[in-house]
Amino acid sequence: MKPTEFEPADTVLSGETADIYFAHTIDILRREATNPVATMEVFPSRAGILCGIEEVKALLTRVLPEDNREVWALSEGEAMGRKEALLRITAPYQSYGLYETAIVGVLAHCSGWATAARQCVEVAEGIPIISFGARHVHPSVAGIMDYSAIVGGCDGCSSASGAKLAGIEPSGTMPHALILVMGDTVEATVAFDRYMPSEISRISLVDTFKDEAEESLRVAEALGDRLNAVRLDTPSERGGVTADLVKEVRVRLDLAGFKHVKILVSGGIDPERIAYFIESGAPVDGFGVGSYISGARPIDCTADLHEVDGKPIAKRGRTPGITPNPRLKRIL
Amino acid sequence: MKPTEFEPADTVLSGETADIYFAHTIDILRREATNPVATMEVFPSRAGILCGIEEVKALLTRVLPEDNREVWALSEGEAMGRKEALLRITAPYQSYGLYETAIVGVLAHCSGWATAARQCVEVAEGIPIISFGARHVHPSVAGIMDYSAIVGGCDGCSSASGAKLAGIEPSGTMPHALILVMGDTVEATVAFDRYMPSEISRISLVDTFKDEAEESLRVAEALGDRLNAVRLDTPSERGGVTADLVKEVRVRLDLAGFKHVKILVSGGIDPERIAYFIESGAPVDGFGVGSYISGARPIDCTADLHEVDGKPIAKRGRTPGITPNPRLKRIL
Amino acid sequence: MKPTEFEPADTVLSGETADIYFAHTIDILRREATNPVATMEVFPSRAGILCGIEEVKALLTRVLPEDNREVWALSEGEAMGRKEALLRITAPYQSYGLYETAIVGVLAHCSGWATAARQCVEVAEGIPIISFGARHVHPSVAGIMDYSAIVGGCDGCSSASGAKLAGIEPSGTMPHALILVMGDTVEATVAFDRYMPSEISRISLVDTFKDEAEESLRVAEALGDRLNAVRLDTPSERGGVTADLVKEVRVRLDLAGFKHVKILVSGGIDPERIAYFIESGAPVDGFGVGSYISGARPIDCTADLHEVDGKPIAKRGRTPGITPNPRLKRIL
Amino acid sequence: MKPTEFEPADTVLSGETADIYFAHTIDILRREATNPVATMEVFPSRAGILCGIEEVKALLTRVLPEDNREVWALSEGEAMGRKEALLRITAPYQSYGLYETAIVGVLAHCSGWATAARQCVEVAEGIPIISFGARHVHPSVAGIMDYSAIVGGCDGCSSASGAKLAGIEPSGTMPHALILVMGDTVEATVAFDRYMPSEISRISLVDTFKDEAEESLRVAEALGDRLNAVRLDTPSERGGVTADLVKEVRVRLDLAGFKHVKILVSGGIDPERIAYFIESGAPVDGFGVGSYISGARPIDCTADLHEVDGKPIAKRGRTPGITPNPRLKRIL
Amino acid sequence: MKPTEFEPADTVLSGETADIYFAHTIDILRREATNPVATMEVFPSRAGILCGIEEVKALLTRVLPEDNREVWALSEGEAMGRKEALLRITAPYQSYGLYETAIVGVLAHCSGWATAARQCVEVAEGIPIISFGARHVHPSVAGIMDYSAIVGGCDGCSSASGAKLAGIEPSGTMPHALILVMGDTVEATVAFDRYMPSEISRISLVDTFKDEAEESLRVAEALGDRLNAVRLDTPSERGGVTADLVKEVRVRLDLAGFKHVKILVSGGIDPERIAYFIESGAPVDGFGVGSYISGARPIDCTADLHEVDGKPIAKRGRTPGITPNPRLKRIL
Amino acid sequence: MKPTEFEPADTVLSGETADIYFAHTIDILRREATNPVATMEVFPSRAGILCGIEEVKALLTRVLPEDNREVWALSEGEAMGRKEALLRITAPYQSYGLYETAIVGVLAHCSGWATAARQCVEVAEGIPIISFGARHVHPSVAGIMDYSAIVGGCDGCSSASGAKLAGIEPSGTMPHALILVMGDTVEATVAFDRYMPSEISRISLVDTFKDEAEESLRVAEALGDRLNAVRLDTPSERGGVTADLVKEVRVRLDLAGFKHVKILVSGGIDPERIAYFIESGAPVDGFGVGSYISGARPIDCTADLHEVDGKPIAKRGRTPGITPNPRLKRIL
Repeated sequence: MKPTEFEPADTVLSGETADIYFAHTIDILRREATNPVATMEVFPSRAGILCGIEEVKALLTRVLPEDNREVWALSEGEAMGRKEALLRITAPYQSYGLYETAIVGVLAHCSGWATAARQCVEVAEGIPIISFGARHVHPSVAGIMDYSAIVGGCDGCSSASGAKLAGIEPSGTMPHALILVMGDTVEATVAFDRYMPSEISRISLVDTFKDEAEESLRVAEALGDRLNAVRLDTPSERGGVTADLVKEVRVRLDLAGFKHVKILVSGGIDPERIAYFIESGAPVDGFGVGSYISGARPIDCTADLHEVDGKPIAKRGRTPGITPNPRLKRIL
Repeated sequence: MKPTEFEPADTVLSGETADIYFAHTIDILRREATNPVATMEVFPSRAGILCGIEEVKALLTRVLPEDNREVWALSEGEAMGRKEALLRITAPYQSYGLYETAIVGVLAHCSGWATAARQCVEVAEGIPIISFGARHVHPSVAGIMDYSAIVGGCDGCSSASGAKLAGIEPSGTMPHALILVMGDTVEATVAFDRYMPSEISRISLVDTFKDEAEESLRVAEALGDRLNAVRLDTPSERGGVTADLVKEVRVRLDLAGFKHVKILVSGGIDPERIAYFIESGAPVDGFGVGSYISGARPIDCTADLHEVDGKPIAKRGRTPGITPNPRLKRIL
Repeated sequence: MKPTEFEPADTVLSGETADIYFAHTIDILRREATNPVATMEVFPSRAGILCGIEEVKALLTRVLPEDNREVWALSEGEAMGRKEALLRITAPYQSYGLYETAIVGVLAHCSGWATAARQCVEVAEGIPIISFGARHVHPSVAGIMDYSAIVGGCDGCSSASGAKLAGIEPSGTMPHALILVMGDTVEATVAFDRYMPSEISRISLVDTFKDEAEESLRVAEALGDRLNAVRLDTPSERGGVTADLVKEVRVRLDLAGFKHVKILVSGGIDPERIAYFIESGAPVDGFGVGSYISGARPIDCTADLHEVDGKPIAKRGRTPGITPNPRLKRIL
Repeated sequence: MKPTEFEPADTVLSGETADIYFAHTIDILRREATNPVATMEVFPSRAGILCGIEEVKALLTRVLPEDNREVWALSEGEAMGRKEALLRITAPYQSYGLYETAIVGVLAHCSGWATAARQCVEVAEGIPIISFGARHVHPSVAGIMDYSAIVGGCDGCSSASGAKLAGIEPSGTMPHALILVMGDTVEATVAFDRYMPSEISRISLVDTFKDEAEESLRVAEALGDRLNAVRLDTPSERGGVTADLVKEVRVRLDLAGFKHVKILVSGGIDPERIAYFIESGAPVDGFGVGSYISGARPIDCTADLHEVDGKPIAKRGRTPGITPNPRLKRIL
Repeated sequence: MKPTEFEPADTVLSGETADIYFAHTIDILRREATNPVATMEVFPSRAGILCGIEEVKALLTRVLPEDNREVWALSEGEAMGRKEALLRITAPYQSYGLYETAIVGVLAHCSGWATAARQCVEVAEGIPIISFGARHVHPSVAGIMDYSAIVGGCDGCSSASGAKLAGIEPSGTMPHALILVMGDTVEATVAFDRYMPSEISRISLVDTFKDEAEESLRVAEALGDRLNAVRLDTPSERGGVTADLVKEVRVRLDLAGFKHVKILVSGGIDPERIAYFIESGAPVDGFGVGSYISGARPIDCTADLHEVDGKPIAKRGRTPGITPNPRLKRIL
Repeated sequence: MKPTEFEPADTVLSGETADIYFAHTIDILRREATNPVATMEVFPSRAGILCGIEEVKALLTRVLPEDNREVWALSEGEAMGRKEALLRITAPYQSYGLYETAIVGVLAHCSGWATAARQCVEVAEGIPIISFGARHVHPSVAGIMDYSAIVGGCDGCSSASGAKLAGIEPSGTMPHALILVMGDTVEATVAFDRYMPSEISRISLVDTFKDEAEESLRVAEALGDRLNAVRLDTPSERGGVTADLVKEVRVRLDLAGFKHVKILVSGGIDPERIAYFIESGAPVDGFGVGSYISGARPIDCTADLHEVDGKPIAKRGRTPGITPNPRLKRIL
């Protein structure tokens, strides 16, 4: 994975996405001609995986004065503790005060996604996880969400924009819509096989019209060695995918000589569900995870000034002065 | 409120933000020369307030063939039941199949925000709610999040981009940073009063350096009649804002002759907390709500084909044919 | 329903099935020449539906002296309260003391079954219930269990011996074994239709090899008007029968013109599950209930002497003298 | 213990106790001249102690063709795991299909009883357990219930029929009825002692008329060395038997020189209650257990065909082919 | 009831029982010659029954200057709400500051006892309650505790000192010790009857040596019409007193012609237990309540200065100025 | 610590505080001329720290005949198990029977307080605990309560009477009243410093008018090296004292050069709260504990006769004869 460079959006640089009171603050300070060097530190409200710091760095690179700045931070994808100082900016306050909203927003949202992804990865014991949640978030963040899932440890993602940010190829199978439009699972799978370039995996979705085990055998017979996997996505109205179903499909495929065909599982997958499959010994070869990752709560972050003009300071409830954290690395 | 027009982003139109398998699907169908008129319906996974349908309409207006389309939907801000059909699109499948990810993503995310806002509004019994959560989401969705909060019933929001989408002015007080940089709450408030245009409310944040009650009296004495309100945002390290604190500040302001000064409360506000203040009889004049709204889980939506070429169809677990819903209005 | 006459078993009359200490007691009393007229009353440990009193009456008719006996009781199928006196026997103690074990055993076991059946009937709101639990109890009580279920309100039962006791015809569909031996559901259903007398309902079991909805349509097409019903018995490994599945099969049968085909549901059915189907609005036409009825806990009964030789008496913890109960009817 | 031989009942052999649909099935297969060699396996729905396999073996010995049968099973009293294959029958299907109901019914009911007995035995740490529950079940199964309790580990049972099946002598004390009829505990105990053969234990029930401790001393003084034990059966209306009561009776008996008199406890005994007495250090010499064993839920069993004519087969949700289990022993 | 006058103890007047810092405070204020008229108000931390105000009034009468004092309060035995102002003292601070500890201590402890008593009285539906808890508190407060129980609604108490404070006669039955020393319940009861003046009730304690029902009949036969009541106090080791025991003793006494003998119940009685007897329909004629009342938690009280020299004042967290309460009556 | 001698109160010696039935008992026994040597043992209803035995010993010394007594007991402050014999008196019954109420009352109440104190001490890991609860109990027991807290392990107490009983000096800071009367925390602290003898610690209460951190710095600057500590007692209306507040005050004092100033915490302190501060790493130097200790439930004690005239005896539910306890020491 070799991620692309982040580029700050115009609406961020202009302050349009900021809380209006930061615009007012900069305005007042300018008129008062007050622009002390100030140190702002950022703290997460709960432990997790840091994500978004690369995007924040790209923003700070653009706005901080090159000759009067010092920025320290944890790295993209690193674990962070609750209330640990994860970022420290020292620079003239007017240069960055307007961007507090964007900085903590990026870190909160991306770290929320990456942390949820990591939770799935940790219980999956090496079975690959693909992020399938683009369909549950606004398209403006579909890409950055999938990027964060990759940072958190996912092996792939379904959106092209997310894959591009992460520097990988997007992953996918086929939607129910294709099968419904073509009217038969085997027919749709054969068409997929006919037109798609060979580097794209042949993964057939087998729960649309017939019993999953029966349909798995039908598509396996149709594609033979070229079939890479079947995907089980049984809806809750039919009891969802169960560990017993996976085992049975495995046995029936094996009995029919299709040991090479893998089984992917999707639909309501979360860490608890992944643990259930693993504890039940179900031979799953990959999980598609949707809203558990994409709908994860952001990890709210606090940004506090701890030094102004070299003097320790803090609002009530916080401790004045720089917060020591030997894990921080200088990034600017 | 007179919202701006929505404009589909290029990355949505190009399919970059879509699940890759929809791109494959359209590709296969084109090669197969299969393009039936198909009816897709969208259903929310839980009850809530619909939001995002205006943005979806703007997208469909661009992509559906004008002479062969029919779109029915509930309205922006309307209540929707669990699994109620909220949108029905009938058009040649190739014209819109690629946009399934974006359509359900917009609806899921925006409806999640609007629904959380509505929950706050419903318990607040008429006390205004301002959306303060831009700092907890990625800046790419800060504006649409605040717009959704307004659709859900909030009286204002802090981001300029959100206010613009909603056709209102942004709301704000002052950040702790201004007070910390200037070194004193009274001094910062006086500066704010000096430079800000008169149409902007004078709202002083009174928990930075001194006891909230003491500071409230100090800023009230400094600004007199021009002070509109004080904002209490006591951090959890100091016990947070309590109903008793609000009552005490009210009594102390009243005893000193500042009955016109309102009291706003922020910091960890959610419906439970709002109910607590109201049940305790605390004289709050406004609530600032942050991550309860901005971090709300999206309301995942399902999109299913129910008719292809005029024939009822459905995948296993779903009922074939058009799902009746007399509440739908034709929008295209 | 016109039940058969009960006939006491030889092993009961001989005292073989009794607690040995009652045999000792009768032996001692005979040697002591002590045979007072004593009144024994029976009380259930929890409320329920009385069953077994007809069998008890048959026993008492055989053993009590015709000229010195008085027996009062509630009726078969009547509701009884917790600790209500449900049976009162007044006769020379030696004539019936040996049968205490059998009397309370019959009443406890049968009332337990009848009460469980009644609980199902009460939530089913008129939808017929068939007792399918013979396979979960020892064959020596399979018949009396099914008889008790009928007393409790079931509309039918699967065992021939139970049906005979209750004076009805046994009910049944077909087992998975028939389908597995014949290799196909349609083939098995057609064979059933070919050989079975016309008064036996044609009910096809549709979950053995294929998706239930698909199989339902196949058997409906094969038998046409002669198909009475399909039975859904989806195993838990496949998520069990869900309300959504019943609805979907109904819609698919109706769309294909098979509105006359009923839908029966079995597999893990209990009152909670019946309520779930009814609250979900699933169009079920009949429930098969197994171990909820047949495995019901007996309603333990207490038998106490309350009068000996006309004098009130009782062990510690019980109230001396006859326990008044105006609901008792004289049966001997 | 040397159990008697089991003998299949006529009502079982005739199919009268079977689910009617098995009779139909055999009828259809005969007319179709279909009689493949089929393998049926039986699986318990939860872990426990297997009981009833001897009775099942007696039935199979009668019905399977001697030259074309193979039966493998676990042994009477052996532990079985959840869903472990406990019995495998391979024979022409028509020879045994009718008996599926009886086979799983015997195994379910008997294993339920034996398992409950084992649970009591396991917490009792060597203190003997007597099955006293005949009075809570139908007399048709009183004997087989007590037999199953012995298989589960009980040291004795109260029914003569149960003791006979298990090849032991029945156990018993005296009922409240004897004492109430004779009017005094000491008088009843003395009469018992006078008439009963010397090999029967003298165990006096001491809670009928007077305080248990007082009565214990009275009967001990009356019988002296010949008194084997007292039984405490205090009713719940008087607080039930408590550990403190046992300790106190023990001390009072010892102080009066009756160290040889044992103390038995009955009334609402179950594993939790046994554990309570043991953890409290109460010197109990034996427990009488009633409805915990006799009212135990059967362990429902599933019978599935896994091979027909040598080919692996299974209904949906089950795995085709023989289920490996190296613990099975060939019994026929 | 005509209570005695309260008299402040010397150790209270001298300040010996006060928190030492109040002694320091008075010392400092004297040296500073600061003695403003100050208003102190007292608030309970939870709702309850006020008790102790008469004792507090006696103290204030002694220490406040007659010509410069004003005291308002709720009345002894009145209900008070949580945080309601229950007492307001206006006088020169030096005259009463030292007694803050004693004032709130008296009110907290006495109100705790009275409130617990009231809870018993409220569920007892008119059945008399006697305070039996002197044995669970230090003898220095045994009297004031029993006085508080009477204020809370008890009909009597066992301590002579409490009865004296409340202006009534003490109530009592007999202790187990008397029976144990004399060796027999009947003998002890007869001796009691022989020597005690006729105005003292004959109440026999019937659980010492024999079964309660048996003993009740023995003492009733011994004293005949002169026996007023029996008291059941069965220890927990024997299951405690149950509703069934009360009913049984009642029936046995009635059957034997002792309808005039009442039944008192003691031992672990609290409101929950009283409700249990009443809901069970047990014919109890009186309850003896011990540690539920005597061990009740004090109702902690807060004492705050709200006015000094006529000016509203308050510490942080409290509201400056007099707290309005129209229910207060002037008492000094 | 060198405690004072206890002296029995006249109201105890006269029997005024006793349950009236003990007075009756002694009266009856005198008239019957029955005065056997009897052994009474006392047992606590739950485990805890024994306290009050010194006061009981003082009473027994006064009332038991010197030549015919034997008293064994555990020691003041020793741990006692549930239902362990903690005191054994052997003497003529008439000499001590009247004092049963006082003996168990003293032990119950004092042990309750000492046990609660010990619970605080055990979680405090060496941080000193001061008993501040005199204000929550009746002044008649304020001293003995504080004495018991010291026995339980507290380092000090606020009442002079308690300190005297324990042989130590009372501890205290200053009340809110002093600050409210003087109008300013600094002014009050300076006055305290001016007049109080030097051996009394200078501890300033810093939450009355201003923010605690701000006020701490103000008093530290005013007293400099002479300030020993600040006390945080933030009321619940302001969120109570939090671990974060303690940390912040510590850092701000240290930054300003006042490392010698300690921090005491009070207000709603109990073991759970102490554990919270310790687990949070808050640098607390001492806790003031109020109603957790002073409002502790007494440990109800049972007094039973176990031997009369040398013969083992006991009421039902108890074991006759002396209860062995090798831990008892002879005290009289």
